[in-house]
Amino acid sequence: METKKQGSRTFALTCPPSVAGWGSVVGKKEGQGPLGRCFGSVSQDSYFGEKTWERAESVMQEQALAQALEQAGQPAGALDALFGGDLMNQCIATSYAARSTGVPFFGLYGACSTMAESLALAALLLDGGFGEWTGAVASSHFCTAERQYRTPLEYGGQRTPTAQWTATAAGAVVLAKNGPGPYVTHVTVGRVRDRGIKDANNMGAAMAPAAYDTIVKDTGRSSGFYDLIVTGDLGKLGQALVVKLFDQDGVELSNYNDCGLMLYDLEDQDVHCGGSGCGCSAAVLTGLLLEGLRSGQWQNILFCGTGALHSPTALGQGESIPGICHAVALSARR
Amino acid sequence: METKKQGSRTFALTCPPSVAGWGSVVGKKEGQGPLGRCFGSVSQDSYFGEKTWERAESVMQEQALAQALEQAGQPAGALDALFGGDLMNQCIATSYAARSTGVPFFGLYGACSTMAESLALAALLLDGGFGEWTGAVASSHFCTAERQYRTPLEYGGQRTPTAQWTATAAGAVVLAKNGPGPYVTHVTVGRVRDRGIKDANNMGAAMAPAAYDTIVKDTGRSSGFYDLIVTGDLGKLGQALVVKLFDQDGVELSNYNDCGLMLYDLEDQDVHCGGSGCGCSAAVLTGLLLEGLRSGQWQNILFCGTGALHSPTALGQGESIPGICHAVALSARR
Repeated sequence: METKKQGSRTFALTCPPSVAGWGSVVGKKEGQGPLGRCFGSVSQDSYFGEKTWERAESVMQEQALAQALEQAGQPAGALDALFGGDLMNQCIATSYAARSTGVPFFGLYGACSTMAESLALAALLLDGGFGEWTGAVASSHFCTAERQYRTPLEYGGQRTPTAQWTATAAGAVVLAKNGPGPYVTHVTVGRVRDRGIKDANNMGAAMAPAAYDTIVKDTGRSSGFYDLIVTGDLGKLGQALVVKLFDQDGVELSNYNDCGLMLYDLEDQDVHCGGSGCGCSAAVLTGLLLEGLRSGQWQNILFCGTGALHSPTALGQGESIPGICHAVALSARR
Repeated sequence: METKKQGSRTFALTCPPSVAGWGSVVGKKEGQGPLGRCFGSVSQDSYFGEKTWERAESVMQEQALAQALEQAGQPAGALDALFGGDLMNQCIATSYAARSTGVPFFGLYGACSTMAESLALAALLLDGGFGEWTGAVASSHFCTAERQYRTPLEYGGQRTPTAQWTATAAGAVVLAKNGPGPYVTHVTVGRVRDRGIKDANNMGAAMAPAAYDTIVKDTGRSSGFYDLIVTGDLGKLGQALVVKLFDQDGVELSNYNDCGLMLYDLEDQDVHCGGSGCGCSAAVLTGLLLEGLRSGQWQNILFCGTGALHSPTALGQGESIPGICHAVALSARR
């Protein structure tokens, strides 16, 4: 069985797994955005009833996964494996959420590419003949991420024009070996790309080269095949850079958008360059894209998770910010 | 194709991938231990020629992977996917090492279970029909880990009797679809277990329940099948706890050891309860175990990566330390 051309980074799935259920949980600000009505639940409380924001993020993951399992009509115990991650050091939102469900668990770190990375591995495992049900989950929380990566929230630091807003959001997906779709048909594994960006407030520029590298070089289809190519989350600046890179190749990306531009109203919600964080693309996928594939709004989507593998420690030592982009092709039909 | 019984967490690989190459890189102290002569290379310089210990850890991964690729007779470009991780926040040792090789990369976070987690996924991907060559890599460095998880090195804190010594070590493995072995025959996916341990200097106790949960409940073989069951890295206390848990079930684990007890001389090297860190089990696997399978010293080994999903932030908020254990069954013959 040959599932990919030699030297390519794209695996074509032989029997594409079906997305059997999905769930999304967001915070107040995300609920006020253009996609506010699309999400499974919106909390007005940034603590989600917990004592700390870190605990809150775990609860968001648990709730999103519970929604996805309910839609799939399965108990948590049905999952043969759950793939997940988040932005916190040691990925604790995910570890503690996985503790509560007690399912077989693979922890990932892919920064904001985590939803695509987890979805990719969950699909590859099933298509490889391992198990019947797999899950993928990712989250971020503005209040856990900003103080860890940049400045204490109480500091009230002025945000630069290039900054993005870390989404308070979680998304989860449950895959089945068979079902009515939508389907995961292809997976392109990302490579770490680095063009020397050292500004922790300009993640879009750090990730854009990786997005370009994955979309253009390897999917083996023309960009016109997709009704929608969506990166997550490059924001306004990063998205413009990707458009420019394609433009240099003479390719017009008319069907291209970015989750960071879709989650918020950039004019009215003071998010500067747009949304970011693992939860941003996770929530747009599970709140909007999968529903649109099921309803017939779109037939083919290329979901490209983009992650800035940003470390305050490495930046302090003079390192630049590497980026990665994993792409997952989704289709309404097999 | 049914590769596991329903409700089990063990996948039996249909066409077990062959471990085509392995590499190990350790620091001075590890080179002075009982396995000192087994490793691919030993550095007397904790900086490995770099300006920071964080950069040094990336170099260790690059060197270990280069050894593994050389033994496999393949260039880095042959890898269809590399799975890897480390203990540092945002797993930067791995991200920057993956940047330098430029191969398709899946980032993982599994604390000290990372070598088993990456090996498991690299094997599942190949056996699933995806690609020809995959890689797995993990590392830790005493100087990057201790200051991040506990106290600044300069502080010279007194270590408790239950403490383990984070190994300065990296291990890498290259898998092939076919070859002369040793082979990865089974993978058991871990679950997050937590018995309420809150002592950051007692990781062994935090991980022991997960090791017991994975070894006893799910491998579907009697423990006597294996010439060696090896956990990594519970240390003296954690290992004793696992033995006790089995003892309560009336099972004597006569063939059981722990990488944390194998890497150092506990009497003479002042490591208290033994070794720990992703690099400890990675180096014992790639320095000793795979060689022993190839030479005929052992026929069947159950390699159980144990991780304490420990977070200083979560501990400070009153959380306990969850553990996880992924097991990979290795055999000299298919």
